[in-house]
Amino acid sequence: MKTSTPRPAGRPRSQEADTAILSAALDLLIENGAGQTSIEQVARRAGVTRATVYRRFADKTALLVRALEWINHDHDPDFTGWRDIDHMFDDWAAHLAVTRNRRLLRRLYGSVDDYPELMKTYHEVNGGLRATVVRQMLVRTREEGLLPAERDLDVVQEMLTAAVINHLGSHPDDEGAPAIKAYFLAIMRQFGYRPA
Amino acid sequence: MKTSTPRPAGRPRSQEADTAILSAALDLLIENGAGQTSIEQVARRAGVTRATVYRRFADKTALLVRALEWINHDHDPDFTGWRDIDHMFDDWAAHLAVTRNRRLLRRLYGSVDDYPELMKTYHEVNGGLRATVVRQMLVRTREEGLLPAERDLDVVQEMLTAAVINHLGSHPDDEGAPAIKAYFLAIMRQFGYRPA
Repeated sequence: MKTSTPRPAGRPRSQEADTAILSAALDLLIENGAGQTSIEQVARRAGVTRATVYRRFADKTALLVRALEWINHDHDPDFTGWRDIDHMFDDWAAHLAVTRNRRLLRRLYGSVDDYPELMKTYHEVNGGLRATVVRQMLVRTREEGLLPAERDLDVVQEMLTAAVINHLGSHPDDEGAPAIKAYFLAIMRQFGYRPA
Repeated sequence: MKTSTPRPAGRPRSQEADTAILSAALDLLIENGAGQTSIEQVARRAGVTRATVYRRFADKTALLVRALEWINHDHDPDFTGWRDIDHMFDDWAAHLAVTRNRRLLRRLYGSVDDYPELMKTYHEVNGGLRATVVRQMLVRTREEGLLPAERDLDVVQEMLTAAVINHLGSHPDDEGAPAIKAYFLAIMRQFGYRPA
């Protein structure tokens, strides 16, 4: 239906199409990887035309980057932190116990040579608030005497990231949250962590 | 040239074709990843026919698995260990300072969902002798009092692997061997390592 008045500039985009496109992009990224995902496939999976996708996203990279922001940030806008480091590992373990999350993170890592923008965006989105809160957890843990005073928290924090990536690559996808939490705690103990 | 006598069963295969095929397979794996590599491309790159490749390898996975064994094991048949843990980190840093090695390892990790056989083979080939020698280095380091007696060497060893994977994903490819060695030593210090 044509209208005689021009559409106002700031009007909301079609939310349904947005959601369908971003969901389809994430599904295809997880199933096939960034290299094997195309705008055409995303449009087909989302049930929209290619033109509908291109009106929103300049290219595949822009689409995948937005899909990552959407799943990582928009879905959890109320995140303000964890109660303590034990709660943080509960949260990480629950996240890593979900195969879909694991495959998405592996696809991200696996795209580093072909689509460096994806990893960069993931780091920016996750690296802001979340990295700050992880650091706060580590600082507090050390202040409470549960980590040795001489620990370099830059290195410890980087090793926790390394532990996540390693887990995705060398532990089975059905390991379960309790075992994953135990994995993180065993690593922390090697850094001298002693729970209260 | 035809010969009237049948070829003996155990005769050496054409070494040149073998080398050309395995080199081409590795190059394409590094450049494009396992998913984007085909037997046809490998044959073209190696300057042989597809039939020549298929006489040696049943399929792409068998070819890539053999190429990994070839680069990781056959190239270094005389490896018997490192002098000490410092020498081990020198060796790791030198290896990780070469972009081609980094890209190969990233492609391996990136293939985990599409070609789990590749990662498995890499672990088997590298996981045998090398893992044993890494463990010996850690045991000796702890025995010499350079690591706290209570360290769980299973966890420390797994975290050194994690550190390698993490470095590949989040440090620049031109970092250089001295900085990479410093990275490993900084991690070891968080485990309580104190060099002699």
